[in-house]
Amino acid sequence: MKITIDRSTLSEALSDVNKAVDGKTSIQILTGIKLEVSDEGLTLTANDNEKAIQTLITEVEVTRVGAIVVPAKFFVEIVKKLPEEEIEITVDGLQVSVKSGKSELDLVGLDAEEFPELPKMTVQQSFTLKGSVLKSLIKQTAFAVSTNEQTPVLNSENWSLSNGELTIIATDRHRLARLELKVDGADGIELSGLNVTGKHLNELSKIIPDNLDVEVSASYSHVLFRMGDLMFYSRIVDGSYPDTSKIIHNKFQTEITVNTASFTNALDRAYLLSREEKTNIAKLKTMGSYSIELSSKSGETSKVTEQVEISEMTGDELTISFNSKYMLEALKVIESEQIHIGFTGVMSPIIITPVGGSKALHLVLPYRTTT
Amino acid sequence: MKITIDRSTLSEALSDVNKAVDGKTSIQILTGIKLEVSDEGLTLTANDNEKAIQTLITEVEVTRVGAIVVPAKFFVEIVKKLPEEEIEITVDGLQVSVKSGKSELDLVGLDAEEFPELPKMTVQQSFTLKGSVLKSLIKQTAFAVSTNEQTPVLNSENWSLSNGELTIIATDRHRLARLELKVDGADGIELSGLNVTGKHLNELSKIIPDNLDVEVSASYSHVLFRMGDLMFYSRIVDGSYPDTSKIIHNKFQTEITVNTASFTNALDRAYLLSREEKTNIAKLKTMGSYSIELSSKSGETSKVTEQVEISEMTGDELTISFNSKYMLEALKVIESEQIHIGFTGVMSPIIITPVGGSKALHLVLPYRTTT
Repeated sequence: MKITIDRSTLSEALSDVNKAVDGKTSIQILTGIKLEVSDEGLTLTANDNEKAIQTLITEVEVTRVGAIVVPAKFFVEIVKKLPEEEIEITVDGLQVSVKSGKSELDLVGLDAEEFPELPKMTVQQSFTLKGSVLKSLIKQTAFAVSTNEQTPVLNSENWSLSNGELTIIATDRHRLARLELKVDGADGIELSGLNVTGKHLNELSKIIPDNLDVEVSASYSHVLFRMGDLMFYSRIVDGSYPDTSKIIHNKFQTEITVNTASFTNALDRAYLLSREEKTNIAKLKTMGSYSIELSSKSGETSKVTEQVEISEMTGDELTISFNSKYMLEALKVIESEQIHIGFTGVMSPIIITPVGGSKALHLVLPYRTTT
Repeated sequence: MKITIDRSTLSEALSDVNKAVDGKTSIQILTGIKLEVSDEGLTLTANDNEKAIQTLITEVEVTRVGAIVVPAKFFVEIVKKLPEEEIEITVDGLQVSVKSGKSELDLVGLDAEEFPELPKMTVQQSFTLKGSVLKSLIKQTAFAVSTNEQTPVLNSENWSLSNGELTIIATDRHRLARLELKVDGADGIELSGLNVTGKHLNELSKIIPDNLDVEVSASYSHVLFRMGDLMFYSRIVDGSYPDTSKIIHNKFQTEITVNTASFTNALDRAYLLSREEKTNIAKLKTMGSYSIELSSKSGETSKVTEQVEISEMTGDELTISFNSKYMLEALKVIESEQIHIGFTGVMSPIIITPVGGSKALHLVLPYRTTT
């Protein structure tokens, strides 16, 4: 193969595709990026067998078609630093030569025939989201995915689509994030059991163009996110996602409405002290209709006490303990000015929802404490 | 003690002083910051017995004098996040109470009597540098200090002052950085054997105000940098610094002058490949009066070759190998547009000096190679 290509164009595409390269594998071919030149242009592919990214560059001057696999890390870095905007890449057998101005790079690539093939996407169902919306969905849910690899299904989010509404649930058994969203033109589509790996979504999030539509397609084994000429494949995680509907109450014994920033900042200070103890326990105590008290302790001697004004309180007075870090992570992705917090007694899940704004719900389990 | 103080003022002062807290010590008192209130104001001190930072805040409303030691990490972070600009700190015995708006923090401090005393600075010699100049001196030399702790004296820079000229030398036996600078009003002062710890200088560099003068004072055991009300003490490292004068040639067999950016960028690409081999070996080959070739290899199959135009070349043709990472680190602190590189054969040190600009010199030892 032989091509002439613009350095910035190639560099940006390499940087996107590189996010599917497995940096830790000992299988050499998986540490590479495949370059494939056809009459259509240059196709770049990375594939670690769990996720894959492919992109097509059409703005390329093709002298000769062909394919090669180059070492990802080094190639991505050196292309970024080549001196001129015009790059000439020539491949002869496995010999790769890259020229730019007075720089010349020679290396031996790997056989493109040995590179893993992309997943076959048959039996597809598709729906479309705006890039900015998909990014926001991921931000609001992926933080609650478990990072403990003992239960693989909890390393994923559960996506389902019914009656034109997309529901995303992420939980690590200690907290949960749920998001519901109307999807235009998805009325006839029924999807369930789509367990999408949280780490893949975080990588995907970095390469989603804000202004493009993203087509989401599902086969039995994979989900494909198509953004123009850029495609992200993610293998669906086997196993059935836990049924969380029973722990999500919507009748409460105690309810408060509070300014999101005031509550977050006060809890952040309580968290700083609770972190010293590594338990992250904070305590919330209702104090009538106008304020609550947030507090945390470290040892017998240190204490942070915060009075937070609230907008409204209904139901019974209550004192409840919870993990301040989990609560803070949920608060950080809520964009509404006010939040509603619902309690069903000291041993039941705490339910946080934005007042207005997106149809989101966050759940944090309480701690049993003796104080 | 009891004071009222501005949150931002306290937070900035704590952040400066915190740079002398030893994060790794198991001695509890050394993990703290001492707060001492006198009629002058609030003095903050951190001291890990190797370095110490002290600062005085005069803008404080004093109700009652006194002293306490507070846990550095937690205190620095929570003060940063307190809700109101006005903070009230009350100490009663070892009980510390901090109030700001509707936040209250209670903790037990440590006895200020147990906090280590600052070094006594007797037999002082002093000179003064502008803050911006001192920062620049550190940037141009501290990177060459050894991080290997087997030879403590090489973890320091050697400072000396004679005939009104300050000389700083830093070396790790593989490369060397030397800087010479005329110091106004220092004609009568003779200083030698001042081994200043590189890590301390890096911490100092973060808190030097650009626009203030820094008074540098030396006793037998310590060097003190005084910046207004902010003081940085550093224990002088024992031992005699190696005599490097014999390896710094000033007569060369081969000399080239080259544009700093062109040379740096080309070497950076060669470095990227040489890094794959972990040796960082790059090769420089003179090619007559107009250009040089920089190259590096990885294994038998990969090669980067760079042609770099030069401004001038005198003396014998030469091919020499060296550590590209060491050379790059020197190039990155050189601010002149052109550099001069002097060689005295393939086995002798390579000497890099800026053309014009500061009186700096960088030395990199060559590699013996068979290719």
